[in-house]
Amino acid sequence: MVVLERAVKFEEVDAAGIVFFARFAVWGHEAMERFFDQVEGGYVDLITQRHIGFPAVRFESEFLAPVRYGDVLRIDTTVGHLGNRSATFVYAMHKGDALVAKLQHTVVVTDLTQMRSTEMPDDVRVAFEKHLVAAPEA
Amino acid sequence: MVVLERAVKFEEVDAAGIVFFARFAVWGHEAMERFFDQVEGGYVDLITQRHIGFPAVRFESEFLAPVRYGDVLRIDTTVGHLGNRSATFVYAMHKGDALVAKLQHTVVVTDLTQMRSTEMPDDVRVAFEKHLVAAPEA
Amino acid sequence: MVVLERAVKFEEVDAAGIVFFARFAVWGHEAMERFFDQVEGGYVDLITQRHIGFPAVRFESEFLAPVRYGDVLRIDTTVGHLGNRSATFVYAMHKGDALVAKLQHTVVVTDLTQMRSTEMPDDVRVAFEKHLVAAPEA
Amino acid sequence: MVVLERAVKFEEVDAAGIVFFARFAVWGHEAMERFFDQVEGGYVDLITQRHIGFPAVRFESEFLAPVRYGDVLRIDTTVGHLGNRSATFVYAMHKGDALVAKLQHTVVVTDLTQMRSTEMPDDVRVAFEKHLVAAPEA
Repeated sequence: MVVLERAVKFEEVDAAGIVFFARFAVWGHEAMERFFDQVEGGYVDLITQRHIGFPAVRFESEFLAPVRYGDVLRIDTTVGHLGNRSATFVYAMHKGDALVAKLQHTVVVTDLTQMRSTEMPDDVRVAFEKHLVAAPEA
Repeated sequence: MVVLERAVKFEEVDAAGIVFFARFAVWGHEAMERFFDQVEGGYVDLITQRHIGFPAVRFESEFLAPVRYGDVLRIDTTVGHLGNRSATFVYAMHKGDALVAKLQHTVVVTDLTQMRSTEMPDDVRVAFEKHLVAAPEA
Repeated sequence: MVVLERAVKFEEVDAAGIVFFARFAVWGHEAMERFFDQVEGGYVDLITQRHIGFPAVRFESEFLAPVRYGDVLRIDTTVGHLGNRSATFVYAMHKGDALVAKLQHTVVVTDLTQMRSTEMPDDVRVAFEKHLVAAPEA
Repeated sequence: MVVLERAVKFEEVDAAGIVFFARFAVWGHEAMERFFDQVEGGYVDLITQRHIGFPAVRFESEFLAPVRYGDVLRIDTTVGHLGNRSATFVYAMHKGDALVAKLQHTVVVTDLTQMRSTEMPDDVRVAFEKHLVAAPEA
């Protein structure tokens, strides 16, 4: 499990006074970037030097409680599925003890120069395997 | 079916050169706002005058093809499920003839002053019923 | 003068309940894109086909009144200065009769393949000249 | 001087491949929030508990070099002007030794419940005075 603490930003709420739901996908992406800190050079080098990207093919979110400005979330990232060229991140977002959102983010390992799926580099696979959980909750 | 044409904005791409996946949720929300043009006063009055909001409880996306700056999407909005206090929007996003993304957005009709679910107003229910499709694809 | 009508979006407010100030720069950019509708192929072709961009070198904003969700702004775009390789857009943003924000946006005509300033294409110059105002208000 | 280190985010670039200019205003706001860490409870309590906000009345930016994904900026925040109910933040943004952007952000101390200017609280004034520089560079 990789953990990211993330405060809600001033501009992430909407006219209903709660966090705009699309922001949770942004936070999921931030949690993914944090996850790749395990790989040398991190997400930045993957994208800019190695030209390996992780476009989403599925993204599922369940929202359990509203989140507001002033809240700080703890995002626990695990891997719920690992394929040959794809993987599913599971982000469990907590406010204190309460689970406020649960997201599943399936990505395909992609050669960005050709925008085509590619073999998973070894160091990326090692990172995924290290955080793979046996039975991802649906 | 309610249709929204939407050009990709200059700043909606990411460092991989394609539209950032969280933007699709933003576009889904825009399609929902367009949907509520059927209701007198539209989404703006619902939020600001009637204090009725539609927070998401589920959001599911499937991405079928990358989208780039310069693309114009057509978003077809239907209703895939209608409950007493909730509904599921289905957004089928097309680039030309190709389906590039499919999203399902389940919202709960909410009294924003109490941030609690509430009965669906009649005019809102009529709008949902008008665009309800029998068997939403999963 | 080129005019763009633009409704405030649901997610453009902040935790103080008014439009987040950085959004005005986004709207300025939208007004600039609208301005380039005069040029064949518009801003999209400039960027993606002709590889001519307009990075900002200065951006100045004056905010005169708060703007809220539900407001619709009218953005009047003129050209306040025209140089050999640069130009300054002036965006006057109105809510009804009231001027709510005034922005000046100086851009340099840039060859995006080399990220270097370049001569202004003739059709771009014609567009600028057409909307050049003699004495831009400060 | 208050310092904030800030990595460019994956989604902060635009279709020209450089950071979208409106993002610099977002970063300026983040630097301001960091600035208020000096005040007990910080910016969050100012907004949510004390109902004191700092809407912008002016915002000026000068962009000296393009910034890209992978860059990490250092934002040095000082106070360039201090009035009775207003103050001007100066954000000098550096990439390594190079100054890439310089921003000036004038805010008015505002009672958010009435959306009206108000006296500057003592702890806020102390923070401003501590970082006031004699002659703000233009």
